[in-house]
Amino acid sequence: MSRGKSNSYSSETGTPKAAVERLSLYLRELEALLESGQKTISSHQLGQALKITDAQVRKDLAYFGQFGYPGIGYRVEELRESLRAVLGTDKVWPTALVGAGNLGRALLGYRGFAGRGFQVTAVFDGDAEMVGKKVLGHEIHPMEDLSRIADEKGLVLAILAVPAAAAEEVASKVVQAGIVGILNFAPTQLKVPDEVSVISVDMALRLEQLAFQVNQRRGHVASPSESKDE
Amino acid sequence: MSRGKSNSYSSETGTPKAAVERLSLYLRELEALLESGQKTISSHQLGQALKITDAQVRKDLAYFGQFGYPGIGYRVEELRESLRAVLGTDKVWPTALVGAGNLGRALLGYRGFAGRGFQVTAVFDGDAEMVGKKVLGHEIHPMEDLSRIADEKGLVLAILAVPAAAAEEVASKVVQAGIVGILNFAPTQLKVPDEVSVISVDMALRLEQLAFQVNQRRGHVASPSESKDE
Repeated sequence: MSRGKSNSYSSETGTPKAAVERLSLYLRELEALLESGQKTISSHQLGQALKITDAQVRKDLAYFGQFGYPGIGYRVEELRESLRAVLGTDKVWPTALVGAGNLGRALLGYRGFAGRGFQVTAVFDGDAEMVGKKVLGHEIHPMEDLSRIADEKGLVLAILAVPAAAAEEVASKVVQAGIVGILNFAPTQLKVPDEVSVISVDMALRLEQLAFQVNQRRGHVASPSESKDE
Repeated sequence: MSRGKSNSYSSETGTPKAAVERLSLYLRELEALLESGQKTISSHQLGQALKITDAQVRKDLAYFGQFGYPGIGYRVEELRESLRAVLGTDKVWPTALVGAGNLGRALLGYRGFAGRGFQVTAVFDGDAEMVGKKVLGHEIHPMEDLSRIADEKGLVLAILAVPAAAAEEVASKVVQAGIVGILNFAPTQLKVPDEVSVISVDMALRLEQLAFQVNQRRGHVASPSESKDE
């Protein structure tokens, strides 16, 4: 399949990226429903929760299988299990954290990861002063040990919480260690081999998108600080 | 305009979200080019940098204006200024940070924000033990002072780095204080009035998307830790 040609479609499956992203949102909604004790849900209700049409819900889910029952809708627990299997979050993913600064610590303490199958099993940092210290119970290892520990622990994914200037070099070490998926927090586009997946969490880009929305609403008329009382 | 009906189009302008997101990526590329001294660039080159077609580049930019010159392409500095004006990052956006834990501290120290017009001018935390302490030179204020300080400093945007359980309540206080744009790091969908923009940075969702990509490549055959040597 053509890889990297489009930003809108998954290169692996031809599935629209937006549909794959919504899988995660459906999954959250289903988890909330399970907690509240609801057994079934219609595509209309799922759509309402995500502010999309019921037709869109059915179209999204149809990319991944046949999940609905006529006259019933979806069985909440069954659909949750199916979507977890599609996303791969029904498994445990041994994950490396590279970068033990504030962001790395925040991610290590982030409850949203462990609950979704992502277990940080080793922490690395390029700073010799950090090495050997403990952060939230994890010893910080030097980058030189990455390959060995990746083999020992079967690391599959890596979270890169390093500065932009270091990201490219760190990514190449991560790839050399046999890790095949990178969650990149550095505001830079990583160059990696085709067989490695990279997803970026670009915080500055998101903030720019927010500025764009607010800016468009204000019609470019006033500077942000002048237009407070509109 | 219909708001919240679709995830793919900006409700404010009818512009595809993906095109707006790429504006940020074009902007980065242009900044790198300026640093390297390049004066002009073709849509083909811009497309290569983002791994999209030159036709897509021209289509994206056409949503926002007429920027190209026949036989020349785009003038790098001019296009950078134009895109900054479209995104609104040619202005300074007085921004509140709510939540001074590890993630908040990481965001406060994040260099990518200040360089793009986002200036954190006040820090808040709901934890009485944090209030009055300093973090990277910023005093931590109690939530009770949010409205007053928002008025005094003309706060327009807020970054929410709080746990999911607190996010809804914090968001409602932020909205009451007159803030019109929220960058939300909590893994929860915030309910805010239509006139307030919310962009979420959903780290667990991104990690799930990464797992999906790796999972699809491996064709669901083995568990992540078993299939390391494929």
